[in-house]
Amino acid sequence: MNNYSEKIVITTGDPNGIGAEITIKALNLLNLPSKEIVIISNSKILNTYGKLSNNYEVIEIDYNEKVEPGTISAAAGDFAFRALEKACELNPKFIVTAPVSKEAMNLAGHKFNGQTEVLEHFLAKAGQKAEMLFVSKDFRVLLLTRHCALRDVQITKDLLIEKTERLRSYFQNKLYIKKPSFALCAINPHAGEHGIIGSEEETIMIPAVESLRKRGINITNPLPADTLFIGGVQNYLKGEKVPYDCYIACYHDQGLIPIKAAASEKTVNMTIGLNIIRTSPSHGTAFDIAGKNIANPESMIEAIKACVY
Amino acid sequence: MNNYSEKIVITTGDPNGIGAEITIKALNLLNLPSKEIVIISNSKILNTYGKLSNNYEVIEIDYNEKVEPGTISAAAGDFAFRALEKACELNPKFIVTAPVSKEAMNLAGHKFNGQTEVLEHFLAKAGQKAEMLFVSKDFRVLLLTRHCALRDVQITKDLLIEKTERLRSYFQNKLYIKKPSFALCAINPHAGEHGIIGSEEETIMIPAVESLRKRGINITNPLPADTLFIGGVQNYLKGEKVPYDCYIACYHDQGLIPIKAAASEKTVNMTIGLNIIRTSPSHGTAFDIAGKNIANPESMIEAIKACVY
Repeated sequence: MNNYSEKIVITTGDPNGIGAEITIKALNLLNLPSKEIVIISNSKILNTYGKLSNNYEVIEIDYNEKVEPGTISAAAGDFAFRALEKACELNPKFIVTAPVSKEAMNLAGHKFNGQTEVLEHFLAKAGQKAEMLFVSKDFRVLLLTRHCALRDVQITKDLLIEKTERLRSYFQNKLYIKKPSFALCAINPHAGEHGIIGSEEETIMIPAVESLRKRGINITNPLPADTLFIGGVQNYLKGEKVPYDCYIACYHDQGLIPIKAAASEKTVNMTIGLNIIRTSPSHGTAFDIAGKNIANPESMIEAIKACVY
Repeated sequence: MNNYSEKIVITTGDPNGIGAEITIKALNLLNLPSKEIVIISNSKILNTYGKLSNNYEVIEIDYNEKVEPGTISAAAGDFAFRALEKACELNPKFIVTAPVSKEAMNLAGHKFNGQTEVLEHFLAKAGQKAEMLFVSKDFRVLLLTRHCALRDVQITKDLLIEKTERLRSYFQNKLYIKKPSFALCAINPHAGEHGIIGSEEETIMIPAVESLRKRGINITNPLPADTLFIGGVQNYLKGEKVPYDCYIACYHDQGLIPIKAAASEKTVNMTIGLNIIRTSPSHGTAFDIAGKNIANPESMIEAIKACVY
């Protein structure tokens, strides 16, 4: 068996989405040395969506169905899942994952909330947990909760402490930033206004912050998210340094709205906390435009670049 | 009694916040004809924070306490409340309100969630309701829920239909836009992904949208908010037309994060749905910098300009 420990392994995601198309487009535009890249996919799928201009190693995963762009199917979900499983087996330096359909994976009986959870399932060693970071240049956002309904969003003191500790480890061990600065978004508007519109800031978040500071972590009190992100978005767009090394958002839209407003397709989804760093475009399968050869590979390009540079 | 029906009435908000300071700074910079403007405040408060360069009519509201910048007090909350009451009595064309402290108003026994609710209390005729719109140039965001804790955010079909109807009336009657285009934010990430991460899109929002379309309203299906706002923010910053006449957000941060990311202090809070249009800066009392003469009047300037132009 080859040694993949220095390689970037790319999965093409759901066969009926835009994953293979953007993988091919991104690799053809980036033109990386072929020895650095390994693709986990299926020739029939790749040939449906385009042609690779370099001679990359392709590891084949069985797929006996017809490729039907835009269709949600159990077979497609199962293929996407088995490709991820294979990527984890290879134990590479980086995994880049094109988008999958949670719905298709669920139809196939793989009850995961997303690829992050699948990777965690296969890769997490004792004590490890996957965390979801969104990144574009020096604008970074950690999500405390991920793909859950808004009504299910709940922050606990332990959750905030554990995830912030893992975030610090990532900064120290992978980015060599010894004392990163973290900005914490309040869960409620106006940071709850001293308990008038929500109490989590007073009862959960501030006590967690105090505990984190005792552990030497540089983190703000929970701040109103609408004003907090102004500096991040505006500095990013001016090409200036973003005020904090990382923003910590309580839920998906709170963190994703500002970074996507600033970086749009350049936003990369990064999984940290496991031994292998994984990146992914921040968009979905885009079934509505699959197979039309009009998908924009920009976020996939950024996802691959995040591993190379 | 004078006739105020063509005038702009300005309240200076909490005496211990930045309200009087930004009112004075804004008026001195705008230099509007003095006959257009009426200030509801108190000379002692005004003199504490600066000096008006024009000779505007000032309607005095009693205030027997010391002005103590940065202090939250019942007397200050009561003053702010009585100024709003007076503004409503005058029945002007526009009301511009500097920020108040909900906490101070609550201490004084005025149990309102904000100024919008106070104005609604005094001004709403039968069948009328105040709606909260945030505006900067042609970037507009309506909030379906306002200052409530995240865990209390709840969208019903009736709520969505009624608020969207009032929004259409505002566009037709005040802005003379006959068929405005509305973009609806999904409450859940990824618009719930067909019920996998939340069901409100399928059970509440799409049925409401269908009903609104039957009434001739141009509104999108509930769309993932993180991608929806990219066009609004990026077009605004490029000085291009924002893709929709108004975005409809399910809750405070979902709507305020993107418009503030784009427009920052230029964001104006506008109350529509009552006979009098009210505008207000989109920030709070900023007690931490009150009395230091360092407050930025930009949002107050925009709030006044939104009435004049």
